[in-house]
Amino acid sequence: MSAAPLPPAPEASFASDNAAGASPEVIEALAAANAGPALAYGEDPWTADAVAAIQERFEAPVDVLLAWGGTGANIVGLSTLLQPWQSVIAVDSAHVIVDEAGGPARFSGSTFTTVANVDGKLVPDAIEPFVGWLGEEHHPQPAVATISQVTENGTVYSIDEIGALADRCHAHGMLLHLDGARIANALVASGATLAEMVRDTGVDAMTFGFTKNGAVFGEAVVYLRPELAAHARFVRKQAGQLVSKSRFVGAQISALLRDDLWLRNARSANDRAAELTVAVAGIDAVDVVRPPEANAVFARIPWDRLDELQRWSFFWPWDPADAQVRWMASFATTSEDVATFAAGLRQLLDAGVGQSER
Amino acid sequence: MSAAPLPPAPEASFASDNAAGASPEVIEALAAANAGPALAYGEDPWTADAVAAIQERFEAPVDVLLAWGGTGANIVGLSTLLQPWQSVIAVDSAHVIVDEAGGPARFSGSTFTTVANVDGKLVPDAIEPFVGWLGEEHHPQPAVATISQVTENGTVYSIDEIGALADRCHAHGMLLHLDGARIANALVASGATLAEMVRDTGVDAMTFGFTKNGAVFGEAVVYLRPELAAHARFVRKQAGQLVSKSRFVGAQISALLRDDLWLRNARSANDRAAELTVAVAGIDAVDVVRPPEANAVFARIPWDRLDELQRWSFFWPWDPADAQVRWMASFATTSEDVATFAAGLRQLLDAGVGQSER
Amino acid sequence: MSAAPLPPAPEASFASDNAAGASPEVIEALAAANAGPALAYGEDPWTADAVAAIQERFEAPVDVLLAWGGTGANIVGLSTLLQPWQSVIAVDSAHVIVDEAGGPARFSGSTFTTVANVDGKLVPDAIEPFVGWLGEEHHPQPAVATISQVTENGTVYSIDEIGALADRCHAHGMLLHLDGARIANALVASGATLAEMVRDTGVDAMTFGFTKNGAVFGEAVVYLRPELAAHARFVRKQAGQLVSKSRFVGAQISALLRDDLWLRNARSANDRAAELTVAVAGIDAVDVVRPPEANAVFARIPWDRLDELQRWSFFWPWDPADAQVRWMASFATTSEDVATFAAGLRQLLDAGVGQSER
Amino acid sequence: MSAAPLPPAPEASFASDNAAGASPEVIEALAAANAGPALAYGEDPWTADAVAAIQERFEAPVDVLLAWGGTGANIVGLSTLLQPWQSVIAVDSAHVIVDEAGGPARFSGSTFTTVANVDGKLVPDAIEPFVGWLGEEHHPQPAVATISQVTENGTVYSIDEIGALADRCHAHGMLLHLDGARIANALVASGATLAEMVRDTGVDAMTFGFTKNGAVFGEAVVYLRPELAAHARFVRKQAGQLVSKSRFVGAQISALLRDDLWLRNARSANDRAAELTVAVAGIDAVDVVRPPEANAVFARIPWDRLDELQRWSFFWPWDPADAQVRWMASFATTSEDVATFAAGLRQLLDAGVGQSER
Repeated sequence: MSAAPLPPAPEASFASDNAAGASPEVIEALAAANAGPALAYGEDPWTADAVAAIQERFEAPVDVLLAWGGTGANIVGLSTLLQPWQSVIAVDSAHVIVDEAGGPARFSGSTFTTVANVDGKLVPDAIEPFVGWLGEEHHPQPAVATISQVTENGTVYSIDEIGALADRCHAHGMLLHLDGARIANALVASGATLAEMVRDTGVDAMTFGFTKNGAVFGEAVVYLRPELAAHARFVRKQAGQLVSKSRFVGAQISALLRDDLWLRNARSANDRAAELTVAVAGIDAVDVVRPPEANAVFARIPWDRLDELQRWSFFWPWDPADAQVRWMASFATTSEDVATFAAGLRQLLDAGVGQSER
Repeated sequence: MSAAPLPPAPEASFASDNAAGASPEVIEALAAANAGPALAYGEDPWTADAVAAIQERFEAPVDVLLAWGGTGANIVGLSTLLQPWQSVIAVDSAHVIVDEAGGPARFSGSTFTTVANVDGKLVPDAIEPFVGWLGEEHHPQPAVATISQVTENGTVYSIDEIGALADRCHAHGMLLHLDGARIANALVASGATLAEMVRDTGVDAMTFGFTKNGAVFGEAVVYLRPELAAHARFVRKQAGQLVSKSRFVGAQISALLRDDLWLRNARSANDRAAELTVAVAGIDAVDVVRPPEANAVFARIPWDRLDELQRWSFFWPWDPADAQVRWMASFATTSEDVATFAAGLRQLLDAGVGQSER
Repeated sequence: MSAAPLPPAPEASFASDNAAGASPEVIEALAAANAGPALAYGEDPWTADAVAAIQERFEAPVDVLLAWGGTGANIVGLSTLLQPWQSVIAVDSAHVIVDEAGGPARFSGSTFTTVANVDGKLVPDAIEPFVGWLGEEHHPQPAVATISQVTENGTVYSIDEIGALADRCHAHGMLLHLDGARIANALVASGATLAEMVRDTGVDAMTFGFTKNGAVFGEAVVYLRPELAAHARFVRKQAGQLVSKSRFVGAQISALLRDDLWLRNARSANDRAAELTVAVAGIDAVDVVRPPEANAVFARIPWDRLDELQRWSFFWPWDPADAQVRWMASFATTSEDVATFAAGLRQLLDAGVGQSER
Repeated sequence: MSAAPLPPAPEASFASDNAAGASPEVIEALAAANAGPALAYGEDPWTADAVAAIQERFEAPVDVLLAWGGTGANIVGLSTLLQPWQSVIAVDSAHVIVDEAGGPARFSGSTFTTVANVDGKLVPDAIEPFVGWLGEEHHPQPAVATISQVTENGTVYSIDEIGALADRCHAHGMLLHLDGARIANALVASGATLAEMVRDTGVDAMTFGFTKNGAVFGEAVVYLRPELAAHARFVRKQAGQLVSKSRFVGAQISALLRDDLWLRNARSANDRAAELTVAVAGIDAVDVVRPPEANAVFARIPWDRLDELQRWSFFWPWDPADAQVRWMASFATTSEDVATFAAGLRQLLDAGVGQSER
């Protein structure tokens, strides 16, 4: 087979939003924070400023603990909320179940109970079969439900859905935890403020993600009720998530929250995903599964072409059984990247279809 | 009491070497790595380059896993070497015992057995009382000894001392782990290469520290024998120590290892500690405990003056029972900082003595 | 409402097989073992005899560790087979998932992955979605599948079904663990020997249950491949499952295995369950869900009568959503107990139906 | 060498008190409890009676959870009192440190901090170096001190000593846990009641041991303050320490507490140890380390004769470095056993000395 020349690949990667680097403002903030001495482990003004900036976005004096990464922040948050004889309920597709190598289960010692996801989401009724276990010594004691916003399927919980989950949890004496690795994308998708989506709905604790939205590194564990945070610092330290030179996390978070850079970054990523959906609409071999709600596009493609496409411009398969792939836009993705990517897909897949028809 | 004007404080902090920021070259490397997309979780060229640079310093194809921080790297290393029914032997002053909030014990589930330190060091004979437990089901099974180089007391193991420990461990079927948060300071203090101090002595695994020596963040877990690393990637991920945008760790490590910046940084810190010892030698109220072997000076001071000195230029108390404080130099400490600090100590303590004599 | 006199209740309980006491031969064996001194922790002849008797039933030199109870034996067996970064796959109804308070998960630190049961059973294809995770550091690594024989739904795996599961596990480098709390009931139900059902099918390790089949207490953890047992004694001890006066477990097990008492006990229990199915067949208000395969009968009853029936002769509800209860026969249940229980059910439910019709 | 005929060996073993069987009353109680059905897991009258009997001995409505064995009871008690980010302080010779294979550390995830024992005992001042860690996120948080009564060295804490420990713990917001595997021996040694020694001194929770004092199996975890027991049932179940046929533990405990059988058993054991001390006083080669305070005699013997003595009548070495062995009397040891043992020692050691002198 004579190889046709490959189309130009986009400069950005559609593999994941963490394939992007950092916002230039973040790099500048890191450099600016490299000024003289500052006590380690969070006793520095940059950390204090970041905590204050987060509290301002929550419009409440929430407890904030900075941390290295997303898995670690989830480990800290969940291990703070859970006793080892309790259980947390999550959907089978949740990041804490699938993509954290069992770390939260190992560290907490608690039971991780999975239920079927509905478009990536946990629905309140899924909790019910387990609340009958409360008080019975033979069974793990349901204590927490955890959700991802945006979900791993790219869907976004509405404020009402989160509120209903929180209400159901609280009615059973349980807590609601939110893995907000992409909380900014969810906020701009829904138009809600952080206070509206997280504080007012009744979420008890969350991971506030920055890495996927333009930071070099750094996440925050946020507790909405002070009694939940009482011992969290000890858990963070023993989880290896207390940042030594914390000023460098604080400076990044402040840079992202300043002038709504975090929301502008997220909006840009979401917009590019929407553009991509439009751009591939005319490619016969591409079937977008659902309109993107945030920054990820899920699409069915001819599965025997996957390798070729990945060699051209790498992205991840999602559901081989359904021939689904995931294309993810980041803050750094440009409209030109989208156009180049769509054009390349069209050229490669049309050619491919043509070839296989011959 | 009419307050005398405070003497000028040094620009650098003598509180700890992690109170310093990062080397300018490191910040430049971070900025340079912010170029276009790169797959996350270590599948990027910066990470590969850093691994190669570390292997080059070991003069061996060691297994290298990058990680966020020092406590996390120790958790990963020790949890890889240990089964939960085994024990690790450490001195009572070890960082993994005292300063990691019990994280390694919680995560590994293993027993942490402490023995008395000798000038901060573990001596081979201290292992002997526990090896009689080997094979007996009633007792935790000794499997690993762990040491810190530089020790928490500021002392430096000689190559012979490390070799003797490794030999003793291996004779009992045990492994030797080294917490090298300050390995660079130990190397320049002893004049040995990394290969001589760690590879040739028989150390089995180590934490290779960069944070305290000029990085923004980032450590490496190094396995000297490939079979020990077989499952280490799973442990790192579940410990929350797999760095998402790993390129930013890789770039820093490469910058530090390039042109021996890491050794120059360490040498500068050690030299400043030596200078400080000389500079305070004439202050009657200051009694340096022992000549510094690396970058920390331990000294006895009039304990009732501690608060005043801390308010002037903060540093940490070390052993209140012996009136000891710790002054630590970093790569960023200048000779001028040392002179300013010593002059300030002299002025404050001489004045203080005078006042209390009146 | 004028209360009609309650019908006579059976002497035996249909609540569970562990509501029965012990076989008289077991009590006699306990008394006989109370003869003079014997070293603790298994270094006694009764323990050695029990191990030999178990090996004889397996027709192989299997490794045998005696233990206190069923949850503990499962904890020991699974924790021996699993590393904390691995996962075990079980059905959602499994005892280790539902009825052990999360103990195996807490102690092992491993991930417990649940899949939907099919009539209480794990089917080989249910493992497939997880084997794609093997080798990927982001995911818990599937290493073991565990099944209960008899299942919690009262069904019995055929030898072919167990063999197919073992083959599938081994094909993926995984192990098969069997919770045999009611293994004797399964053996007499299928007519197979222990060697045929467990050894020849490829099961790697199992809990060999005695408590539910006539012992006062005592279970055995059996490893079919010696390398799996290499460190099991340490795990047993640290799980609190090493029996101090082990002779008293050994004596019971030998008494149960002697002259096939264990199989006679199990056959009697199974036969009583079959008799009960026949005896309640004519009661309109009782709907037996499926013919019993071992010693448990699952039946739908008028749910509003549950309390009344429980007060008369206690038994456990099973699935409130389907109005199912569980009636379980034990070695101690007599045909007279069955007749009395069925007659009482008939009297109470017929009367009840009549009353509610009036 | 012509072998002289061995002297007669005692019928009882001086290896350990758990080398004895059970009191005849206990076996009778087990047999009597084998009467008809009884719900499992403690919902039976025998369990209720045992709980009431224990409460009566405490003269207080303490919370009581029955359990299988001593290690398990310690695991349950300590894991109930501790969070994984906390630490428990124990002496280096404690059973939970040395003889439970690291089980309490693994299950609780907490840090076990050891301090040097003083004649087997923890002294209040040994806690002090660690209380400075309270509130500091870098350090394990001291929360519990645990002591063994009788200690592993055979010494007995006085009521004042326990009270002083409890006071010190409480002053620091810590709790005091007591491993009472041999609590009965301590009570008869001191003449105190259980209420005086445990309740009034301020102990917060304890393991109440029965196995070493005449039971076949069975221990109790006792909480002196109800809030500490709030979640203990879940911990017990997940630790594999909830006894299935609990009636058989309950019946034994009631039998032992009835008519003070437990105290008579313990007094007999203590008295035999005292007799043994007198009986060996005249053997030149035997040097009793200290007068026995409970039921164990520690003595120095010619170490090269140990094997020969063990072959004659087995007992355990204690401290090879000091040529110490341990001889332990049980409830089943008779004065005749003591006389026979002492005579045998005399014959063997005198002969031995003679031979080596020739």
